[in-house]
Amino acid sequence: MFKHSKVLQYPAKPDKPDPVFAKKMQEILGGQYGEISVAMQYLFQGWNTRGNEAYKDLLMDTAAEEIGHVEMIATMIARLLEDAPVYEQEKAAEDPVIGSVMGGMNPHHAIVSGLGAMPESSTGVPWNAGYIVASGNLLADMRANVNAESQGRLQVARLYEMTDDKGVKDMLGFLLARDTMHQNQWIAAIRDLEEKEGVVVPGTLPKECEKDEFAHTLYNFSEGEESAGLDWLKEDAPDGAPFEYENGPVAYGEKPELKPAPKQSHNTPPADERL
Amino acid sequence: MFKHSKVLQYPAKPDKPDPVFAKKMQEILGGQYGEISVAMQYLFQGWNTRGNEAYKDLLMDTAAEEIGHVEMIATMIARLLEDAPVYEQEKAAEDPVIGSVMGGMNPHHAIVSGLGAMPESSTGVPWNAGYIVASGNLLADMRANVNAESQGRLQVARLYEMTDDKGVKDMLGFLLARDTMHQNQWIAAIRDLEEKEGVVVPGTLPKECEKDEFAHTLYNFSEGEESAGLDWLKEDAPDGAPFEYENGPVAYGEKPELKPAPKQSHNTPPADERL
Amino acid sequence: MFKHSKVLQYPAKPDKPDPVFAKKMQEILGGQYGEISVAMQYLFQGWNTRGNEAYKDLLMDTAAEEIGHVEMIATMIARLLEDAPVYEQEKAAEDPVIGSVMGGMNPHHAIVSGLGAMPESSTGVPWNAGYIVASGNLLADMRANVNAESQGRLQVARLYEMTDDKGVKDMLGFLLARDTMHQNQWIAAIRDLEEKEGVVVPGTLPKECEKDEFAHTLYNFSEGEESAGLDWLKEDAPDGAPFEYENGPVAYGEKPELKPAPKQSHNTPPADERL
Amino acid sequence: MFKHSKVLQYPAKPDKPDPVFAKKMQEILGGQYGEISVAMQYLFQGWNTRGNEAYKDLLMDTAAEEIGHVEMIATMIARLLEDAPVYEQEKAAEDPVIGSVMGGMNPHHAIVSGLGAMPESSTGVPWNAGYIVASGNLLADMRANVNAESQGRLQVARLYEMTDDKGVKDMLGFLLARDTMHQNQWIAAIRDLEEKEGVVVPGTLPKECEKDEFAHTLYNFSEGEESAGLDWLKEDAPDGAPFEYENGPVAYGEKPELKPAPKQSHNTPPADERL
Amino acid sequence: MFKHSKVLQYPAKPDKPDPVFAKKMQEILGGQYGEISVAMQYLFQGWNTRGNEAYKDLLMDTAAEEIGHVEMIATMIARLLEDAPVYEQEKAAEDPVIGSVMGGMNPHHAIVSGLGAMPESSTGVPWNAGYIVASGNLLADMRANVNAESQGRLQVARLYEMTDDKGVKDMLGFLLARDTMHQNQWIAAIRDLEEKEGVVVPGTLPKECEKDEFAHTLYNFSEGEESAGLDWLKEDAPDGAPFEYENGPVAYGEKPELKPAPKQSHNTPPADERL
Amino acid sequence: MFKHSKVLQYPAKPDKPDPVFAKKMQEILGGQYGEISVAMQYLFQGWNTRGNEAYKDLLMDTAAEEIGHVEMIATMIARLLEDAPVYEQEKAAEDPVIGSVMGGMNPHHAIVSGLGAMPESSTGVPWNAGYIVASGNLLADMRANVNAESQGRLQVARLYEMTDDKGVKDMLGFLLARDTMHQNQWIAAIRDLEEKEGVVVPGTLPKECEKDEFAHTLYNFSEGEESAGLDWLKEDAPDGAPFEYENGPVAYGEKPELKPAPKQSHNTPPADERL
Repeated sequence: MFKHSKVLQYPAKPDKPDPVFAKKMQEILGGQYGEISVAMQYLFQGWNTRGNEAYKDLLMDTAAEEIGHVEMIATMIARLLEDAPVYEQEKAAEDPVIGSVMGGMNPHHAIVSGLGAMPESSTGVPWNAGYIVASGNLLADMRANVNAESQGRLQVARLYEMTDDKGVKDMLGFLLARDTMHQNQWIAAIRDLEEKEGVVVPGTLPKECEKDEFAHTLYNFSEGEESAGLDWLKEDAPDGAPFEYENGPVAYGEKPELKPAPKQSHNTPPADERL
Repeated sequence: MFKHSKVLQYPAKPDKPDPVFAKKMQEILGGQYGEISVAMQYLFQGWNTRGNEAYKDLLMDTAAEEIGHVEMIATMIARLLEDAPVYEQEKAAEDPVIGSVMGGMNPHHAIVSGLGAMPESSTGVPWNAGYIVASGNLLADMRANVNAESQGRLQVARLYEMTDDKGVKDMLGFLLARDTMHQNQWIAAIRDLEEKEGVVVPGTLPKECEKDEFAHTLYNFSEGEESAGLDWLKEDAPDGAPFEYENGPVAYGEKPELKPAPKQSHNTPPADERL
Repeated sequence: MFKHSKVLQYPAKPDKPDPVFAKKMQEILGGQYGEISVAMQYLFQGWNTRGNEAYKDLLMDTAAEEIGHVEMIATMIARLLEDAPVYEQEKAAEDPVIGSVMGGMNPHHAIVSGLGAMPESSTGVPWNAGYIVASGNLLADMRANVNAESQGRLQVARLYEMTDDKGVKDMLGFLLARDTMHQNQWIAAIRDLEEKEGVVVPGTLPKECEKDEFAHTLYNFSEGEESAGLDWLKEDAPDGAPFEYENGPVAYGEKPELKPAPKQSHNTPPADERL
Repeated sequence: MFKHSKVLQYPAKPDKPDPVFAKKMQEILGGQYGEISVAMQYLFQGWNTRGNEAYKDLLMDTAAEEIGHVEMIATMIARLLEDAPVYEQEKAAEDPVIGSVMGGMNPHHAIVSGLGAMPESSTGVPWNAGYIVASGNLLADMRANVNAESQGRLQVARLYEMTDDKGVKDMLGFLLARDTMHQNQWIAAIRDLEEKEGVVVPGTLPKECEKDEFAHTLYNFSEGEESAGLDWLKEDAPDGAPFEYENGPVAYGEKPELKPAPKQSHNTPPADERL
Repeated sequence: MFKHSKVLQYPAKPDKPDPVFAKKMQEILGGQYGEISVAMQYLFQGWNTRGNEAYKDLLMDTAAEEIGHVEMIATMIARLLEDAPVYEQEKAAEDPVIGSVMGGMNPHHAIVSGLGAMPESSTGVPWNAGYIVASGNLLADMRANVNAESQGRLQVARLYEMTDDKGVKDMLGFLLARDTMHQNQWIAAIRDLEEKEGVVVPGTLPKECEKDEFAHTLYNFSEGEESAGLDWLKEDAPDGAPFEYENGPVAYGEKPELKPAPKQSHNTPPADERL
Repeated sequence: MFKHSKVLQYPAKPDKPDPVFAKKMQEILGGQYGEISVAMQYLFQGWNTRGNEAYKDLLMDTAAEEIGHVEMIATMIARLLEDAPVYEQEKAAEDPVIGSVMGGMNPHHAIVSGLGAMPESSTGVPWNAGYIVASGNLLADMRANVNAESQGRLQVARLYEMTDDKGVKDMLGFLLARDTMHQNQWIAAIRDLEEKEGVVVPGTLPKECEKDEFAHTLYNFSEGEESAGLDWLKEDAPDGAPFEYENGPVAYGEKPELKPAPKQSHNTPPADERL
């Protein structure tokens, strides 16, 4: 069960309108690695957790915070759109800068949401749940989480470089710090889980299931041997066995030929039957 | 530039037809973490790499191999569909098992592809590029990669448990091993990059950009303190500073009130103006 | 800012496992009119509200409740998947009922989420934000809301008819009641707003903008006059003017002919230029 | 069966080229609430209607008209793209206004459609059928329809404010009037159906199915009591029972703990088993 | 402008209910090559045609017919769902055949549409406009059309093999014939246009724009020379120049190395700068 | 199995940065008819081919080449983004041209990919597999292929007209030539297959399945008889039978009325039952 406080976790006030930046900021709201993604990912991971209540609680702590981040960014976008000349054709005709704003902003902000945030990316693509994962395996999911926070913080950092609005930068600075915390916590969780289950996910699969002889070799499928020079390749792999390098990858399979399809499929008959 | 060898990297021959399993196997071909995802992700990461040629080579090595895995699974699916009674209504009416196969299989295998693999998931959703990422930041992307290989190997392991076909299990055993290697290599790469750039992505952002005072605190947004009991929370965070725990999260922002919209937006006017 | 309580708003415990029903129940979680849709719709409407704080509060009240409904249904689905023989091929081969379950369930529940709920519909399509709207116009949005609650309650009612599990029916009975409340509240809000702004959205558009002579006529574009027999068509329209009925719709426009495209577009040149 | 007349229902001639406005106008053609949406929604509702032939006829009347509106807008967009310098790089380099047009227009209009309309929104997202609904319940669907016409007319009104082209405004004025009619007719239909079936959809569900004690209460899930001040909340709800307000929402459920997953799922084992 | 006749172009009456086949038949309604696709494709091609009124008329003739085919199939699906035990759990528990139907049907038919057709494919994916094309170049589009009618007729033929319902087969037999006509007409149009414009689209591009020396060579990128044995490869190409075959494809480009990104992008710095 | 050569098939070097053109060029990388589409389409067609090894080889030859084209275009886009002022807000404020670039470019290039190519279209929509087909019927698929190469070459030609960068034009000139070859080869293949199987797909369907009397008539569903004037309509159809033209299309079906739905569906009851 969730409750809402009206106050924001952190202020979300730009110094001045900027509809073009509002469009760009949509990326960290409704893009692949925006705040909707992390909120939904942590919610589903938390709800699906079985028998690991401390991690479930950690996931719900972080999920609830992230819904609050969606709220902060939605508020910031709504304010970046205030007092901007988005409907004023006459002004645009006279002033190329206004014309450029009307061309460069997200048309949805003017036509669909009435100067509000949209649940979509910076290119106007609606958010979809194909961006997220909740697998039931905590180590796998913590890796998904540290990736999401890394991509997310990278995008926030780039947006930070793309504006000189002090109010916007202030809020982005807060989000950068929270992403630092979230990267830290998921990395610490990974280290904890790897210690208990091993580094390879899933750690519970009996050894005899996999073809062990193929489990530590880098095959050189791309002509040139630059990758062979990576220092770590000369050491043991993280799971303890030594890495190997094979220059000319061998094919263990054969050339596959499929059987003809049944006549009811109306596939093209085999060439020799057509003669 | 790419060249194709006709031989498969590893055999892909089931012992017997199984159209219902063919539907399920689509997940590791064209699902969120199927082989198309890793192939495309590594290709774009490789092509976008700037100034790190050993990693670029490693990415292209692995990408090329993964296209070959798509090929192996596509071949396996095509063969699981051979000799199965997918068009034979009369048999289905007499034999409930055949009827159940005709109801449980992916209709696309009969109607669209003529007993071939489809570029889609186990629920019949077409693969889309919103599943992948190539950010230009290698550490972020290696984290995406170890996540993808973890989710992928987990799904292969589950499929392994869902069949007793020896031919299928043989190929899945090979894929499990290759996913072990790929998890190992991306983890090793992460350790290498973290050593050079720090654990928080992006490591190049000047410290003064972020609000440091919020960068190491776990806020308890979910009532109950189970998460506080996680051992690692009592230690230093991976980036070296100590973790903190705050039970009652403070709101640093205020209750946001947005300005009225301009009349051209035809939003609902403020309540007091309507009176 | 949001906080999470660990207790559910209402119990979510099925009497027995039912993976096939778990698949169907996904519709009211992650389908077009599932609980994710209403939660996200009310959140965005609330965040985008300008100058109508009572409605904003009502939207946030309801949004927060709906996130809790997502939680309840996710929990129910996870439990419908417990103790079901979803990975046991040997049993399936012997028992046609088990085989039918393994064929009829959502493969994602076995392969992707590890027996957890997915953020997707009953056909396995990921939820996407194209399902929702937040327009800045409260009357328009309240109409979206009463529609969403009507479609949602209809779907819950149908699911109610499709199971005889008492635990499932108990929770669905609670959701039916909450959807009754939500239909009631949005209808009451619509009546309130219509009184202030008129029934036609947006009520703020000056009359001279629209071609009034076309604003009350039903054109008979579908041969046969059954629609003319609707009683209400003989009365005044909701906005006060009388309805009219026109049997043979007149075309006010002409046959459009487009100009040839410029040569750089490489469209097919006009027929007479090709001769 | 459908027949096509070549003449347009209403003229669709802009005064001058405007590729940037052509991009924006795509919203009411192929966006979430564009004309394709209403045309397809009414068609499917009509085809699925069972035993209510007057409403079926009304739906088909309106559906057929809406296909004609798609045609009008497609024609208008094609003409807004005529005679505009969309391929002329040399001119763009010299003239910042032309450069701005080439940057602000939808690239599909130049590259994909050869100066024709696209079946997509103003941000270039293809139309999809997840926007529409046809439920078999007329009251539910009439609510979907009045919402669609309200959102649609709002968007047309906003576009009307964003241009000073008299030809464009003339056609938009006609569409505004038709949307007025369509809102009127669906509202009248709702009133008719509510009278027969009650205001809560579906009206056919036996009372004992729902937990009546939860059917009229507004729970205050968002801190602050602004919503309690709404006048209508002090009156009877539209279905006749009195509204209630509950400040501190009670949780009727308990804290859910899920059972461990079977070993074949390779979920993370419970924390106590891992020790 | 469009008008609707209530009579169907051809009867759409199955002999008996079959919800599982109703699910499969969705493919030719709302799948990639279903009737919605051809209807929408021909409409947009017709509306975008410039200066070729006979072809525009042909496109509109065929488009209008195709909307009528959507209508026929929607009607057939609605009837395949009539009188089937889709909500009756008690019967399903007793009768495995009923249980299998309830598991094998599209859940949307029971939950969302109330026994009506859905605008989606046989796997329940909503139709989207990314399936269609209208390019402004008639020869390109006629090729799209003959492809669509070929894929479509193939799918209808496969469905024809998957049922023994005489009523269904009767309607499919009509659709097969219409697809024969439509293949014929688009092929005839292609021959007409190729004669006027040449076989290579677009025929209007000046010869000097393309690197002619690469325009007729088959490069052997797939090891093995089976393709070299195709008879037609030894003859002139359709545009008149002789085909050539090159066994070892030469790379004309070099190994690309990208410049480092600017520091504001926070990409990984070049390896040598990190040392 | 696939191997990668580091050298490009053809040079991909622009003369100067152009982020706005980089956005447009995304269309031929990740749009509906971009290089990802043809690469994936040929791969799946090749893998699904049964008993026609020469065609399988031809498909794999072309597929492998197309992955190399994706690589070339990705490289070109990455270079068009080098040295462009995409993060420099201060410069943008001073220089309207820079401001216009920052507004007109794809925000993903700055925020998501760090100046790299994205797997998406020119409007920023992720590539998806709903664009491609592999049906098992070679003639149908060769028609899909010649369409794809026709649409693709048309788009390349339009991009060629939209730039005066010599490096970009050089690479586009190479792609134009390869698309010429690919159109030629698929047309030749179509002629070969049509000779063996007839022009109507699928050629293997027994004649008695289709209602032959409807297989050669053009029905005039669009008022006006321009289409009747097409010369080829007066000749035999490609399959040998004469075309026919019918001015007033007859309806062979009747007005469909559907049965009432069962009460458990909670559809609106029939009008006469509601009285």
